[in-house]
Amino acid sequence: MSISASRRSFFKQGAVLSAAGMMLPACQAKSPKKVNVPDQLRILFQGDSITDANRDRSSIKSNDFLKGMGNGYALLAASNLWIDHPTTDWHYYNRGVSGDKVFQLADRWEADCFDIQPDVLSVHIGVNDFWHTLTNDYKGTVETYEKDFLKLLEKTQSKLPKLKFIIGEPFVVLGGTSIDTEEWIPAFRDYQRAAADIAKKMGATFIPYQQIYDTAVADQGVAYWCPDGVHPSLAGSALMAKAWMDAFRELYSN
Amino acid sequence: MSISASRRSFFKQGAVLSAAGMMLPACQAKSPKKVNVPDQLRILFQGDSITDANRDRSSIKSNDFLKGMGNGYALLAASNLWIDHPTTDWHYYNRGVSGDKVFQLADRWEADCFDIQPDVLSVHIGVNDFWHTLTNDYKGTVETYEKDFLKLLEKTQSKLPKLKFIIGEPFVVLGGTSIDTEEWIPAFRDYQRAAADIAKKMGATFIPYQQIYDTAVADQGVAYWCPDGVHPSLAGSALMAKAWMDAFRELYSN
Repeated sequence: MSISASRRSFFKQGAVLSAAGMMLPACQAKSPKKVNVPDQLRILFQGDSITDANRDRSSIKSNDFLKGMGNGYALLAASNLWIDHPTTDWHYYNRGVSGDKVFQLADRWEADCFDIQPDVLSVHIGVNDFWHTLTNDYKGTVETYEKDFLKLLEKTQSKLPKLKFIIGEPFVVLGGTSIDTEEWIPAFRDYQRAAADIAKKMGATFIPYQQIYDTAVADQGVAYWCPDGVHPSLAGSALMAKAWMDAFRELYSN
Repeated sequence: MSISASRRSFFKQGAVLSAAGMMLPACQAKSPKKVNVPDQLRILFQGDSITDANRDRSSIKSNDFLKGMGNGYALLAASNLWIDHPTTDWHYYNRGVSGDKVFQLADRWEADCFDIQPDVLSVHIGVNDFWHTLTNDYKGTVETYEKDFLKLLEKTQSKLPKLKFIIGEPFVVLGGTSIDTEEWIPAFRDYQRAAADIAKKMGATFIPYQQIYDTAVADQGVAYWCPDGVHPSLAGSALMAKAWMDAFRELYSN
């Protein structure tokens, strides 16, 4: 077997023995390149169900991956970071809450952001700000979303001036079982543009999840990556975690 | 920022936009090299708490990653496979049960292996077969472990002759908070030798977790990878998942 170079260099150490006991050249390659990151770091994932991913909300301490990190992209991103940046003083928190819109983040921001005092804040919010206008009689508009989201992040920046931001684009996977394309498009595109504009204003690194899903779905279909059009499969979460890792490196590239 | 080649090639598609809206060359590289794997596959993870990893045992259907896959190396390995081998007809099952020894696997093998009819069976078992002799007044010996484990796998092979086996070495991380080295060493080494012997007899791919942990711990310390000496941190689970991926590729390398 030839293990691809990409995989080999992904390993720090270790090896695989074949059944015959032969040592295979599995895990000898050099560590992944490291960007210049601090020894101490608090990383907060914020958002809705996509971030929440069935986490146990009673678990609020950092790094409680068996309960508190959920089973989505936040857990997978943390697992990648743990390998790439071995340090004992990084703290990961997941505070995604299923169903949340921007104003609901704002309502719990004191406990779920300021009390944590993150160094990196990753926010992925917006799908419910639109979706619930279709399903839950929610009256907010794209202006509500944009104004409240910007206000929340500006307040956060003024209280935590050294904070670095990652903003994930809200996405929809057309063809998903819960999505009526005519209801979503073009209206939802305005929410995506608003998120991108806010990222620019805030100096945030922006993850264009829509493009990432569109490309993936063209290859392999909706059911594989995001069956209902909103909630990722594990494959979708892994795809997002990889994009998130690139965004994280971008934060520390200067 | 320079994203390392290893990371870049790990991505299938996607990109990261900087705050200034510039498209970064993040995710354009080619897919990871694929080994020759079938379109349909049932992959079963079996073992003790390390495999279980807090899974919801009421969830028994395949691919139920929000509940049924736990939060350990099995979930992380499945997330890697999902990206590397995009196909809609692979089924992942986790049937690890915290505290289990070999005889307890055997007791539930009809429902937790034969009913699933796996194509790939990954088993990681043995730490409790020794540990419970120290803590739970368990009377089994290394001979019990070796004989019962071999018998179980031979029975499985005779019923599922095309099944491919991965056997993970039971490991202990000396210096962990739950481990008294004098109690464990050298006695536990016999269990590890037994597992390696069984892997050889069964034509299984063997994952030498002990060496993998020893190397990692020398770099970064026990608390980072496996605080209590038995149960991995998320970093430890990610380390195991990467070794597991190499083992999986070895299965399909011919």
